[in-house]
Amino acid sequence: MSNPVITAFDWVPWFARGQVRDLRVRWALEEVGQSYDVRYLPQGTQKDPPHRALQPFGQIPTYELDGLKLFESGAIVLRIAETHRGLLPEDAGGRARAIEWMFAALNTVEPPIMDYVIATLFEEDQPWSKPRLPAVIARIAERLDELSRRLGENDWLDGSFSAGDLLMVAVLRQLKESPLERAHDNLAAYVARGEARPAFQRAFAAQLAGFTAAPPPEYAFLDQPPTRQGER
Amino acid sequence: MSNPVITAFDWVPWFARGQVRDLRVRWALEEVGQSYDVRYLPQGTQKDPPHRALQPFGQIPTYELDGLKLFESGAIVLRIAETHRGLLPEDAGGRARAIEWMFAALNTVEPPIMDYVIATLFEEDQPWSKPRLPAVIARIAERLDELSRRLGENDWLDGSFSAGDLLMVAVLRQLKESPLERAHDNLAAYVARGEARPAFQRAFAAQLAGFTAAPPPEYAFLDQPPTRQGER
Repeated sequence: MSNPVITAFDWVPWFARGQVRDLRVRWALEEVGQSYDVRYLPQGTQKDPPHRALQPFGQIPTYELDGLKLFESGAIVLRIAETHRGLLPEDAGGRARAIEWMFAALNTVEPPIMDYVIATLFEEDQPWSKPRLPAVIARIAERLDELSRRLGENDWLDGSFSAGDLLMVAVLRQLKESPLERAHDNLAAYVARGEARPAFQRAFAAQLAGFTAAPPPEYAFLDQPPTRQGER
Repeated sequence: MSNPVITAFDWVPWFARGQVRDLRVRWALEEVGQSYDVRYLPQGTQKDPPHRALQPFGQIPTYELDGLKLFESGAIVLRIAETHRGLLPEDAGGRARAIEWMFAALNTVEPPIMDYVIATLFEEDQPWSKPRLPAVIARIAERLDELSRRLGENDWLDGSFSAGDLLMVAVLRQLKESPLERAHDNLAAYVARGEARPAFQRAFAAQLAGFTAAPPPEYAFLDQPPTRQGER
């Protein structure tokens, strides 16, 4: 049986390493024990016609197997979960609830977090970002409060670890090193529990190992984190 | 066979009418010819414990059938599509691609549109909203350009109408009456094609007919659109 082929970047800015969305797909493949091949895209070519033919929005990852070509990491994770054992419960109800948490991660919890990432990284220097930040944080805090209450003392969102937990942990991880990360002990422990899984560890290491290219010259300044005044 | 029961609001502000997310579920149910019952929530009670037990984020819609309780409109639409004919192709590849468009609608196209709705409605009066708006619009415009190129002259995103088109049309409809709506003729025609479907028309009429309550006193000013100076 042939391996699926996914796409990933050969270089990303320092702040995106360990966060690019092929991680979600790699993690799902590792959880189900499916080996895979990676086609690395030179950074900057994702918007060119050859990749656009595969991914209309010029993003990664994509997934190809036996003639099927898919994009959108949530859909790829679901496809992997549907065609392998281990990421969705066997019973119809549990399966539907795991999928519910996949959508909750991507359509309810992630949008305000994406907004935060834009405000604190891509638009950090824009004059509107600082005055607006409290409103952005308040929206995330509301979602985290609600999620924390639902999770309670449980290890995972609905019984055993599922594709819903995989995506929720991947979404919450984007708040790493933000004050929001430490606001709820049970959510911090939940993310740590996800990251401690051997499948996550393998996927994470594989993503990092794939950044082997030099940055495009205009992005060279994003190859290392900035040193702050007073730091070495 | 018993009907599924969904939840919806008994009142929403004027600008949300025809946009609340139970519409997506009603539309899916109408497409597959499944009758349903609605439990109306008094506006303001969605954050109270009884509804929170069903929907941890205090939102609507929810879906209940034979002991299964689901929230998150994307997951509910997928569940309806999986248990009825008409919203997913029969072949495995076409089915996976329809689901791919569901996730693309909710995780790639909708987040910048949610951002626009916040900036132009909920935070319209905040000092940061006006200077920031061009950046918000630019993010949506990029996605619409890409979607427009992929759709081309086709009626639907991948062959026949699917749950992916249902969610994409529902997402794009939120730009109604914005300049973004008219930027691409083929996307405007795509949305119109979706809205012209008899199932959409029935779902839309049913949502509007459900707003039978008076507004909570503190929201009474949102019961009608504001009249602008110079208008009657």
